[in-house]
Amino acid sequence: MNTPTPYRYERLAELIVGMIDNGALAPGTRLPSVRAVSEQHRISISTALQAYRLLEDRGILVARPQSGYYVAASRRGALALPSASRARTKASTVSISGAVAALLEHASNPALVPLGCAVPDAALLQSKRLDLALARAARQHGTRYNIYCAPQGDPHLRREIAKRAMRFGHAQSPDDLLVTSGCTEALTLALTAVAKRGDTIAVESPTYFGLLHTLEMLGMKAFELPTDPTRGIDVGALARLLDMEPVAACALSSNFNNPLGSTMAEADKRALLALLARHAVPLIEDDVYGDIHFGRERPKPFIALDGGANTIYCSSFSKSLAPGYRIGWIAAGAYAQQVMERKLAFSLCCPVLPQVALADFLASGAYDTHLRGIRRLFEENLARMMRTIEASFPADTKVSRPAGGFVLWLELPRRFDSRALFDEALEQGICFAPGDVFSASRRFRNCLRLSAGHVWNDRIENGVHRLGRLAQAQLAR
Amino acid sequence: MNTPTPYRYERLAELIVGMIDNGALAPGTRLPSVRAVSEQHRISISTALQAYRLLEDRGILVARPQSGYYVAASRRGALALPSASRARTKASTVSISGAVAALLEHASNPALVPLGCAVPDAALLQSKRLDLALARAARQHGTRYNIYCAPQGDPHLRREIAKRAMRFGHAQSPDDLLVTSGCTEALTLALTAVAKRGDTIAVESPTYFGLLHTLEMLGMKAFELPTDPTRGIDVGALARLLDMEPVAACALSSNFNNPLGSTMAEADKRALLALLARHAVPLIEDDVYGDIHFGRERPKPFIALDGGANTIYCSSFSKSLAPGYRIGWIAAGAYAQQVMERKLAFSLCCPVLPQVALADFLASGAYDTHLRGIRRLFEENLARMMRTIEASFPADTKVSRPAGGFVLWLELPRRFDSRALFDEALEQGICFAPGDVFSASRRFRNCLRLSAGHVWNDRIENGVHRLGRLAQAQLAR
Repeated sequence: MNTPTPYRYERLAELIVGMIDNGALAPGTRLPSVRAVSEQHRISISTALQAYRLLEDRGILVARPQSGYYVAASRRGALALPSASRARTKASTVSISGAVAALLEHASNPALVPLGCAVPDAALLQSKRLDLALARAARQHGTRYNIYCAPQGDPHLRREIAKRAMRFGHAQSPDDLLVTSGCTEALTLALTAVAKRGDTIAVESPTYFGLLHTLEMLGMKAFELPTDPTRGIDVGALARLLDMEPVAACALSSNFNNPLGSTMAEADKRALLALLARHAVPLIEDDVYGDIHFGRERPKPFIALDGGANTIYCSSFSKSLAPGYRIGWIAAGAYAQQVMERKLAFSLCCPVLPQVALADFLASGAYDTHLRGIRRLFEENLARMMRTIEASFPADTKVSRPAGGFVLWLELPRRFDSRALFDEALEQGICFAPGDVFSASRRFRNCLRLSAGHVWNDRIENGVHRLGRLAQAQLAR
Repeated sequence: MNTPTPYRYERLAELIVGMIDNGALAPGTRLPSVRAVSEQHRISISTALQAYRLLEDRGILVARPQSGYYVAASRRGALALPSASRARTKASTVSISGAVAALLEHASNPALVPLGCAVPDAALLQSKRLDLALARAARQHGTRYNIYCAPQGDPHLRREIAKRAMRFGHAQSPDDLLVTSGCTEALTLALTAVAKRGDTIAVESPTYFGLLHTLEMLGMKAFELPTDPTRGIDVGALARLLDMEPVAACALSSNFNNPLGSTMAEADKRALLALLARHAVPLIEDDVYGDIHFGRERPKPFIALDGGANTIYCSSFSKSLAPGYRIGWIAAGAYAQQVMERKLAFSLCCPVLPQVALADFLASGAYDTHLRGIRRLFEENLARMMRTIEASFPADTKVSRPAGGFVLWLELPRRFDSRALFDEALEQGICFAPGDVFSASRRFRNCLRLSAGHVWNDRIENGVHRLGRLAQAQLAR
């Protein structure tokens, strides 16, 4: 099976991207009007608008009121995109746990410049209002909530989360949800519900090291799928894998994957769902970055496309609001019973008061105001980081261009050793994430991930700058 | 191997218990003075005193200031002790999960008389001060703590927990501890660190159904050891098992086990530890009820006897202070690294603010005042429940006599069906725990567990009474 035919608007969008990439459309150029382009390409006005909006969502075009669409200035960057990862021939037994624990320890060391951990700066999260809701709940209703709650979690919180799913077009009932200790527990519950020790899980490559670490602890194998830095995994490669050997599940990011920042086009998402459904292989999706979209529209998660028929949806508030609260959730559809049994068995239920506080906070509407703020903030942070990388890293460094989230993926020449850079950087008081922890087969040693989740300041800028110089020096040796 | 020779004070204690049981020493009888008994048995005064105190701790003797030791009135009860469970010949694949989920759902239904769930009544816990500490931490330091904490947990909380271990003679460093989502997560981490799918875990019989449920979800087998309602498991039976087949771990209650209320004598605990060490089989101990001792002294957990050399200690604050906070901990000794890796993989870390609040609460000394109160409360509750059982259940009902915790275990004649009673009781608005959920091999269908964790009132008393009448009616049919 090959990648499915794209929709008309996607074809137009790709055409425009190609023209920008080959220099035909320079940064700042005004594009033809929607009406003009619709006539030119014999498509409807709404299809043309859809293409422009898609590119705006990806940060490639900018809309100026009363004026039209322009090629975004950030495309001016001299740095190319990282290459798509290549196909692997077999699943890997994961063995990265020591590296993950060590990385997390360094990443939480406040003495180091914090480019290592994909966690938002507490100062940016402005969780005061949430904390006040917690204080109020504890003071007024502490005794009432000093109980084990149901394994599914607080019903008010589930209602608020279910209501939010409407925004991306998924009708969900509070009963479809189970509250977890962050997305990490959600992924653990999903994996143990559908797979067992020795089973193969298909994953992105590179992928979130926490997922790899969980697979390792559960004794599951990872099959790394070739992944494009903007379009995500290659559905054709997954189709070939499924024809070849048994796969217990596919575990993917919904949107703005960590570390690449890639998001699959909706048509690819649909093709993937159809393929998995045909093979009766469940999809486990991780949507922790979905709310941090820079474009106008939140890209749809898989669950909104298949209605949850074959999808287990996992997410949390850790990347956008409250890493300290450890509140995530899972919508496990057909596997809800298995997931609930595992929640009972592994941790019984979640603390009640933080759930009550979060439900209050969500009901107040404060989360949306907050999200609007951090989306702009993280987008600016990434732009600043990109400029600093351009100014300080080797000229042939390739950098991802995420349209959401707050991390960048850098690819340096083959002979570059990000582990050696990691050790040098630590000595200079800088932390980042070396590339090899994002792969079960320890690929990507020439890559690295930088997080822009902290308040931008001279210390951060200077850290990125020094890191670039160190990389240059290593390549010059 | 047979049960080891008891210490002198234990031999004296057993002699006294025998005399009470055969009627030689009637309830209310004054015992010979410590000096007299020491001369009579040619033992030191301190040994004689130790025997009396042990029996006082078990609620068998009562000390009256300026007067001496008396046989406790509660021995007057006409009801005998349940029988020790018999040896099994093989490990069982566990399959009780549906029953556990259903039971927990009923047990949390406020419309039912709450005899089902071994969870203390929020009204008894007086967690106001803890809640105020949480409100203060959230209001004053919320932003500061809106971070992932280290997988080990908040250092202040670990320091306070470590300090408490001194009380039972175990020197512990905060670095030895990892904070968990209740004892349930602690047990999951311990089991996955030392055993894998298909492995056999030796357990008490009856044992806590949550442990059985976790074993089932992890695909581990349970070998049920014969267990005495006062002395706990038969160390000789475990020795025979270890000679016979591979056992990955032994998972036991430290003190006042759920549901029997049994506590192994210290000499038996030491013999068990020596036996397990010889076979290089780790012990996983669950000490959630240890702080709720009715006697003067807190019985020592296993970890205090082997210094943690071969013991993984699990506990929580859920039974004594804050079920709603979901805070437990694990001291995994030689397995600390494996446990930490699993904590990272399965749930990353615990919410920060509840840990900070609990650390404040413990540092204030309020926990000890609180414990003194609930120990008396639960002891009175159990005495009241025992009297109501005597007055309403069939005369040949056997009942446990725990010296701590807040549950009673009832054994009825063989032909009695606690599942049928369960269904009838639900219809009458009463919930309790039927016996078979406490066994992997579905034994104990003629038994049941009643929880006395709620504020005693007419509704509770009436519930127990009606339950007894229903049991009588069933046996009369």
